[in-house]
Amino acid sequence: MIEGIKVIGFDADDTLWVNEIYFRETEEKFCHLLTPYVNEPEKIIPELYHTEMQNMRTYGYGIKAFILSVIETALRLTEGQIPGSIIEEILSLGKIQLSHPVELLEGVKETLNALVGRYRLILVTKGDLLDQENKLRNSGLEHLFHHVEIMSDKHAGAYQKLLNHIDVRAEEFLMVGNSVRSDILPPLALGCYAIHVPYPITWEHERVSEPVRNPHFYEVETLWDMISLLP
Amino acid sequence: MIEGIKVIGFDADDTLWVNEIYFRETEEKFCHLLTPYVNEPEKIIPELYHTEMQNMRTYGYGIKAFILSVIETALRLTEGQIPGSIIEEILSLGKIQLSHPVELLEGVKETLNALVGRYRLILVTKGDLLDQENKLRNSGLEHLFHHVEIMSDKHAGAYQKLLNHIDVRAEEFLMVGNSVRSDILPPLALGCYAIHVPYPITWEHERVSEPVRNPHFYEVETLWDMISLLP
Repeated sequence: MIEGIKVIGFDADDTLWVNEIYFRETEEKFCHLLTPYVNEPEKIIPELYHTEMQNMRTYGYGIKAFILSVIETALRLTEGQIPGSIIEEILSLGKIQLSHPVELLEGVKETLNALVGRYRLILVTKGDLLDQENKLRNSGLEHLFHHVEIMSDKHAGAYQKLLNHIDVRAEEFLMVGNSVRSDILPPLALGCYAIHVPYPITWEHERVSEPVRNPHFYEVETLWDMISLLP
Repeated sequence: MIEGIKVIGFDADDTLWVNEIYFRETEEKFCHLLTPYVNEPEKIIPELYHTEMQNMRTYGYGIKAFILSVIETALRLTEGQIPGSIIEEILSLGKIQLSHPVELLEGVKETLNALVGRYRLILVTKGDLLDQENKLRNSGLEHLFHHVEIMSDKHAGAYQKLLNHIDVRAEEFLMVGNSVRSDILPPLALGCYAIHVPYPITWEHERVSEPVRNPHFYEVETLWDMISLLP
């Protein structure tokens, strides 16, 4: 049982709603588009990942950053010989992804409704500001959150600023999310509690190989299971 | 004299530091790159603006949005016949703009230093989250601000949320900025005070043709001139 919590922070992408699958779908379509123009199609995905990591400091997270890296990868792998019509299709893939309807994950509404009023609920996410705001608006969940924090990156410093800002002590804050790297390790490092809700698909960049060992750490199968961890 | 102010909000781009000029420089280089491939080079800029406006709801503000619209415009105006090397150059222009050093405008440091301690100063800006955070970090001004608000768009609703969040009444809040559309009209509509500091170059989208008539409205030539409006 986790005692003494006042505020619960929820990650959004792949914790409350589907996200990573859309990136994988766009990637798959990109591979399909590019395959006729490259000698070694198996290099497309590793090269894209490499480009994304190289651009992370300049572009940050989110769909616009992703699409710019996709275009750069297409140009590099084809030595600039990719037809303009393919670049146009890549731009379309990005717009489709940006306007995708929000699909809530199972049990999200029930879990948030069971917690609201008993705890201050906040949303803690990263990525494109406009995209995340749009998703929240379309999710039907906006009224349940006391505060929304959109970070450029979810490192311990950003969580510390958040704690100061909402004026709670570390041991009164519980973070819930699917990414060990972004949602679990940084809050634990500050002395907060964290619940990991694994999602079947995790982006390479968010993966952590070491198991988490911390008395403030919990793992559940579905979001609803967190209810039994709280008084 | 503006009496009763507790919090002063400052716009960032073209109020505290140079911004619009870099967009114009990128645009100029883009025109130069594209001119050999189009029949009517005079249509490049209007077509780019048209594309940006069409994409505003999907992409929002900021450099990544701008570069995606530049690529789309290049493809449309050349009917997809633009060489890949030119798209590569466009991507480079975006990265150069994203990593441009911050150039503070004249009198900014002096003005903020004269106000800090007497008022709570906050930064109210829009655009790419990561880009704005990077600029603030590199500006050397971060320690002067009590709070930083990065909005996806600066409409009255977003300012109202900010007032609730920082817990001040409209007539205790003064907004200072170069864009009548984004920094002046929405706060005035809520009953706040606003000081316009015009900047020589204004993006078409931010222009407002009607003069502002409101007893809470002031205009100054340089940022430092606002000091004489406050007790």
